[in-house]
Amino acid sequence: MSEVDQPGSAVVELLGMVAYAELLAFDRMAADARLAPDLPRRAVLCEMAAVEIVNFRRLANRLGEHGADPDVAMTPYETALQEYHELTEPKDWLEALAKAYVWDGIADDFFREVAAFLSPEDRDLVLDVLHDSQYEDFAAAEIRAAIAADPKIANRLSMWARRLVGEGLSQAQRMAGDRIALTILIVEGSKDQAGVQALLKRLTAAHTARMAAVGLNN
Amino acid sequence: MSEVDQPGSAVVELLGMVAYAELLAFDRMAADARLAPDLPRRAVLCEMAAVEIVNFRRLANRLGEHGADPDVAMTPYETALQEYHELTEPKDWLEALAKAYVWDGIADDFFREVAAFLSPEDRDLVLDVLHDSQYEDFAAAEIRAAIAADPKIANRLSMWARRLVGEGLSQAQRMAGDRIALTILIVEGSKDQAGVQALLKRLTAAHTARMAAVGLNN
Repeated sequence: MSEVDQPGSAVVELLGMVAYAELLAFDRMAADARLAPDLPRRAVLCEMAAVEIVNFRRLANRLGEHGADPDVAMTPYETALQEYHELTEPKDWLEALAKAYVWDGIADDFFREVAAFLSPEDRDLVLDVLHDSQYEDFAAAEIRAAIAADPKIANRLSMWARRLVGEGLSQAQRMAGDRIALTILIVEGSKDQAGVQALLKRLTAAHTARMAAVGLNN
Repeated sequence: MSEVDQPGSAVVELLGMVAYAELLAFDRMAADARLAPDLPRRAVLCEMAAVEIVNFRRLANRLGEHGADPDVAMTPYETALQEYHELTEPKDWLEALAKAYVWDGIADDFFREVAAFLSPEDRDLVLDVLHDSQYEDFAAAEIRAAIAADPKIANRLSMWARRLVGEGLSQAQRMAGDRIALTILIVEGSKDQAGVQALLKRLTAAHTARMAAVGLNN
């Protein structure tokens, strides 16, 4: 077990964050399924939620292999992520889908960037559990169809997406301040401050492209 | 396709009911997971919920093989089952577990009895998707531990269980009146009115035994 493998180490902090994010993604998709306009759509969302829980188990097992208690590794993220979700409770089906589309997109990009700094085994696991494009495609198709049917929806959902990003950023800053090992990993992995800025720019550019792809304004 | 396979036939009515019950079980367990006192228990419930959705998909696919639209086959159960769950919203973790324990126990017994009247392929599928004992064991252990820690809980949960059965029976009667083919299957499969009475007696006896097994009074 190298130093990076110790409980409280960067890899444990990252796996703990991704594991808790999967658990919350399950919870949120299961709740959002109730907002579905019909049974087939509801079933699709339930099935996508179930995938998250399978991924959660793989991450929890990997945390165990690192000698970490999954429960302890996830706890530091509980308040910030729970608060984010409570502050951004979707009011309807489209808000729920837009939230998953926007937030999962940014989170997955972030996890993908950080995974590159891990050992091949941990990196491959994280890359493997990131949301597959099936869900993104489903959400994007629903949002596009809704905007095509009523163009006014684009404005409402654009505002909603901006609020999601704003709340998300403030919770992320809060988490970064507390997760020292992970923050150091990101800074060291990015080489220097300019590298971190470049990472943030890549995340922002990808988010802007995703918004444009479904007809939303940044 | 024999007559029993037609949409609106007994097998489609039963598979539709079990499929919708699985979808709702997923929904309910996912919501109940939020009531869990800690992360490990929350994760267990989420994982058990995910199993329901895999079962749901198998039933929906089988409905398709029978030439039935799963959506159409499930719709007749939506109001009654949704209403049951709304009327029996658990207030805490123990009420949630007791509800799953009591209700899944009765529903599984019922589905098992009716499955015996189906073709071997449909029968085996239904038997296969019924809740495995893992969940029942988990719920039973939690209830027993809570009663051991505070015997007064037994009274509260016994009352809760009686309410669940009462609400469940009134919704079941409502459904039976509407599902003609399924009701005929049960009556014919049971041979006669005495056979149906015997079936109901078996369900009641099994429920009473389950209640006693965790220290609850019927």
